[in-house]
Amino acid sequence: MRLDIATVCLSGTLDDKLAAAGRAGFHGVEIFENDLVVSPWSPGEIRQRCADLGLSIDLYQPFRDFEAVPPDVFAANLRRAERKFDVMAQLGADTMLVCSSVSPDAVDDDDLAAEQLHELAARAADRGIRIAYEALAWGRFVNTYEHSWRIVRRAGHPVLGLCLDSFHVLSKGSEIGGIKVIPGGKIFFLQLADAPRLRMDVLQWSRHHRLFPGHGDFDLSAFLGAVAATGYAGPLSLEVFNDVFRQSDPARTAVDAMRSLLVLQEETARRGTAEMRVADLPVVPAPDGYAFVELTAPDPAGVLASMGFVYTGQHDSRPAQLWHQGDARIVVRPGTDVRIDALGVATADPLGAAQRAERLLAPRLSDMDYDDPGVRAPDGVGVVFYRPENDWMAEFTPADPALVNTCGITGIDHISLTAPFDDFDQIALFYRAALGLEAEPETEFAAPFGLIRSRSSADRDRRIRIALNVAALRRGDWAPAVAEPQHIAFTSDDVVASAKAMRELGAPLLDIPGNYYDDLLARFDFSAERLKVLREHSVLYDRDEHGEFLHFYTRMLGSRVFFEVVQRIDGYAGYGVANSPVRMAAHRQFRLTHG
Amino acid sequence: MRLDIATVCLSGTLDDKLAAAGRAGFHGVEIFENDLVVSPWSPGEIRQRCADLGLSIDLYQPFRDFEAVPPDVFAANLRRAERKFDVMAQLGADTMLVCSSVSPDAVDDDDLAAEQLHELAARAADRGIRIAYEALAWGRFVNTYEHSWRIVRRAGHPVLGLCLDSFHVLSKGSEIGGIKVIPGGKIFFLQLADAPRLRMDVLQWSRHHRLFPGHGDFDLSAFLGAVAATGYAGPLSLEVFNDVFRQSDPARTAVDAMRSLLVLQEETARRGTAEMRVADLPVVPAPDGYAFVELTAPDPAGVLASMGFVYTGQHDSRPAQLWHQGDARIVVRPGTDVRIDALGVATADPLGAAQRAERLLAPRLSDMDYDDPGVRAPDGVGVVFYRPENDWMAEFTPADPALVNTCGITGIDHISLTAPFDDFDQIALFYRAALGLEAEPETEFAAPFGLIRSRSSADRDRRIRIALNVAALRRGDWAPAVAEPQHIAFTSDDVVASAKAMRELGAPLLDIPGNYYDDLLARFDFSAERLKVLREHSVLYDRDEHGEFLHFYTRMLGSRVFFEVVQRIDGYAGYGVANSPVRMAAHRQFRLTHG
Repeated sequence: MRLDIATVCLSGTLDDKLAAAGRAGFHGVEIFENDLVVSPWSPGEIRQRCADLGLSIDLYQPFRDFEAVPPDVFAANLRRAERKFDVMAQLGADTMLVCSSVSPDAVDDDDLAAEQLHELAARAADRGIRIAYEALAWGRFVNTYEHSWRIVRRAGHPVLGLCLDSFHVLSKGSEIGGIKVIPGGKIFFLQLADAPRLRMDVLQWSRHHRLFPGHGDFDLSAFLGAVAATGYAGPLSLEVFNDVFRQSDPARTAVDAMRSLLVLQEETARRGTAEMRVADLPVVPAPDGYAFVELTAPDPAGVLASMGFVYTGQHDSRPAQLWHQGDARIVVRPGTDVRIDALGVATADPLGAAQRAERLLAPRLSDMDYDDPGVRAPDGVGVVFYRPENDWMAEFTPADPALVNTCGITGIDHISLTAPFDDFDQIALFYRAALGLEAEPETEFAAPFGLIRSRSSADRDRRIRIALNVAALRRGDWAPAVAEPQHIAFTSDDVVASAKAMRELGAPLLDIPGNYYDDLLARFDFSAERLKVLREHSVLYDRDEHGEFLHFYTRMLGSRVFFEVVQRIDGYAGYGVANSPVRMAAHRQFRLTHG
Repeated sequence: MRLDIATVCLSGTLDDKLAAAGRAGFHGVEIFENDLVVSPWSPGEIRQRCADLGLSIDLYQPFRDFEAVPPDVFAANLRRAERKFDVMAQLGADTMLVCSSVSPDAVDDDDLAAEQLHELAARAADRGIRIAYEALAWGRFVNTYEHSWRIVRRAGHPVLGLCLDSFHVLSKGSEIGGIKVIPGGKIFFLQLADAPRLRMDVLQWSRHHRLFPGHGDFDLSAFLGAVAATGYAGPLSLEVFNDVFRQSDPARTAVDAMRSLLVLQEETARRGTAEMRVADLPVVPAPDGYAFVELTAPDPAGVLASMGFVYTGQHDSRPAQLWHQGDARIVVRPGTDVRIDALGVATADPLGAAQRAERLLAPRLSDMDYDDPGVRAPDGVGVVFYRPENDWMAEFTPADPALVNTCGITGIDHISLTAPFDDFDQIALFYRAALGLEAEPETEFAAPFGLIRSRSSADRDRRIRIALNVAALRRGDWAPAVAEPQHIAFTSDDVVASAKAMRELGAPLLDIPGNYYDDLLARFDFSAERLKVLREHSVLYDRDEHGEFLHFYTRMLGSRVFFEVVQRIDGYAGYGVANSPVRMAAHRQFRLTHG
């Protein structure tokens, strides 16, 4: 399939937008009129620039408020259309988008609409141009695709067809089954956009909150499957109005956009629409869990040892130490600050997994850094793939551990990463698509320094869980340094015992304020004894419909990393997000008090 | 009146919030439960901290999902309430906010709700605590103030009263006349919040988009007047959930909040509610226009001379030059970059105007800089007040002008300022309140590097117009330097002649791309001759329901200032905002091409 993007999806002036689309590998663009109007290039120069970038101009848009109007307005509209045909001829664009009217001049008369669109099509035909008529969800009289199709059919002109836009169809909750009765040849253009399910004015929703496929709540693969079933063979074109993308680096946005189309095609193919197969996107088995997490740290020994980790070995060729406890393995490289540098993912097909991630537009990791295949995720974290039976730990010369303690850590429960404001959605989609994870429900919570959105994903067996957190709005100068931490959460079968053992070893655990426990007592009918134990060990508590969650934190190590130890009881499925503000305030307080 | 603020309005941990509220001069606070729960201070320590800051704790909030529930839930809720009474006793807070229930446990039974609230009140009375019952706009059964008042009246307990919140009342479009039947003594607490008129889910609207009074679309002075008419004598308390304030410097937000309450009280008093008079906020006459605009610039002579300005004089004591043309006067001080430094405002009462602005929390300008009274606006621009008949130009020694041209500039039409993302609303409110301007309709438009919100205000006679522009979201690294310009718009009776004269003098006028004129031709039925003239002189065009607007721009001078020359025909009321994206792209293009 041809993959297109509307220039309105990208920030900048037209030259920025076209360059970004070309570099991300798109085949064509929709030129948004305002982008052309403000451009210093003539339409002919734009055509040349697109050709140089390997982009065709597949749509000129939008032409508004055309049909079902009184004769004088109609005459003016035809005049306006002829001027736009002039522009299109110079652009070499052969399809013009006509949106259903929102004009107060329009009347509710399908026959008149069909008749006037027929006249427009006749004039377009003379110029070698096709007209794609689209029902806006907020069109004054025509606001469903079924209605736009009735008008197009009634007009009965060969160069008049439909433009279908997933947002306009799915935001109205329209049945997509009706798409299948439209001949594929009469669908002239297909625009794709996802969106979060919001209860708000549909025009505002559309203009500000559209998302690339896979970032929102719409079932786009079902929609695309329905369109493909008609025999539609035109471009899949992204048309996403989004306040953030409008002001973000277009090169990054375009890569994100392309990845979202690849993932959408694969998902549509998986649901049975063979045409949507992406030939060179390997399908790989689910991951088997974390092989390790790699940190940089200036002085790894202290904290890990105080948490009961054992120094297991020194890497044979790299300055990396392996520490472990239970099935939790931490590789530590020297670095000036503490940072999560890479994830080791166990999988039966490491090469396939790396190829898949690379096809999803993640750059390959250098062979210098890792012996095994891996990529750099969009947030800069390395993802390295290992075969579980492959004893990668043989790369390490066993150390003679000075201290051998254990504090009951059994493995890695999840890692939590942060993402820049602009990249949150794309990073979440990348991890899901590259590792075969499923999205878990998104949450948003008020933290001391602003709203935080949290989106986690996990494989079906919950062996890989990745939580992503981001400030819901980009922050200014005020937010303190603890605002964007990363963390690793370890599992324990008895967090109270783990906390006790770690405190005895001098681990830098985070103290939780007494008010928190007074509030727990008000909310839950705890025994005095149970509350006393939690309070004494600064263990936090949550519950969901499945079970209970006990967890505690370390203080901040370096500028942005901390550890957590968690105990899931009876299938608790969350991440204790309700307690995150308590943790954030406590980290801040510690820093204020201890510098 | 006592002026309060809820801690939820401010960013940070409780210590940040209380310090900010205290410094801004608030008398008391509502303590939001989550702020207390995450605080390392015990309730007793919080009480002491508030006392040190001169703040009383006037409300503890919120207590949720209490009433109209089955007996076992009721017992648990009473137990929970007793724990919160314990906290309140330590805090020294005597009023607890109880929100109408959203719980699935609740039933639609006003008698049961009244009975259970009566029991809660009886227990509260034993502890010296009052219960303020509030109808949430999304309460499951109780979601209007009329309904909450029926229940409170039915319960009939002396320590059970109402909390009224302007958002919950006005978001539902409730009639405020009904407030007047409530005895003032039964209104225990008054929460004030404004909001933009949005068509969206009311819970999301409330949690994310509330604003301080005067920043949104609600008629808060009518609401406050209705409450004051009951004899209510408790605090006016701001309760504003806002995504931006949650992450902005709380010291700035608290000042903004206090200013908004002063302005609201004055407005309410003006509409006839004498109790709301703010004793020390002088009422001043409308401004008479711009006396001058002061710029810093490294080399002022070139551009101003090329636009037909005449070098009029050198200031007697400061390194400032005066330039003028028609009634447009520009004072230029030496500086490393071009920047709008101050506005000179002509007024019949300069001292009163300065005192008013100072009472609105703007710092007084130093006597060293200006001989006349003035303040520093929140965006850093100086505002200096002059009596029109006072010949302030006598401060200047007349220069011997080397060049005397004129390009038809007759005066200053408006100035356009930018504001940081966080401060947009407060800066707009400050200028309106300090200069007695009226808000004009807010617009939002898509510009090449992101959405821009534009809010202008003007005095009734349109002698002072100030346009404020801001990126609708805080931007990241991508937006180029032209994103936040300031400008001065001069008036001309014939902009085409002005443009021609300026080009002849070598003024650095901005070239507008040809595509813009092709689009004008498609949109408007211009004669070829008229279009040719506009195109030749890079003059832009707009029209509104009153008339037409012709205008042109200079290139960027320094990093962020440009000039505009405008011609309003037949009462055109806008600012040509539709053409702003063209101007932005052209400024960027010029910089890309010429460095």
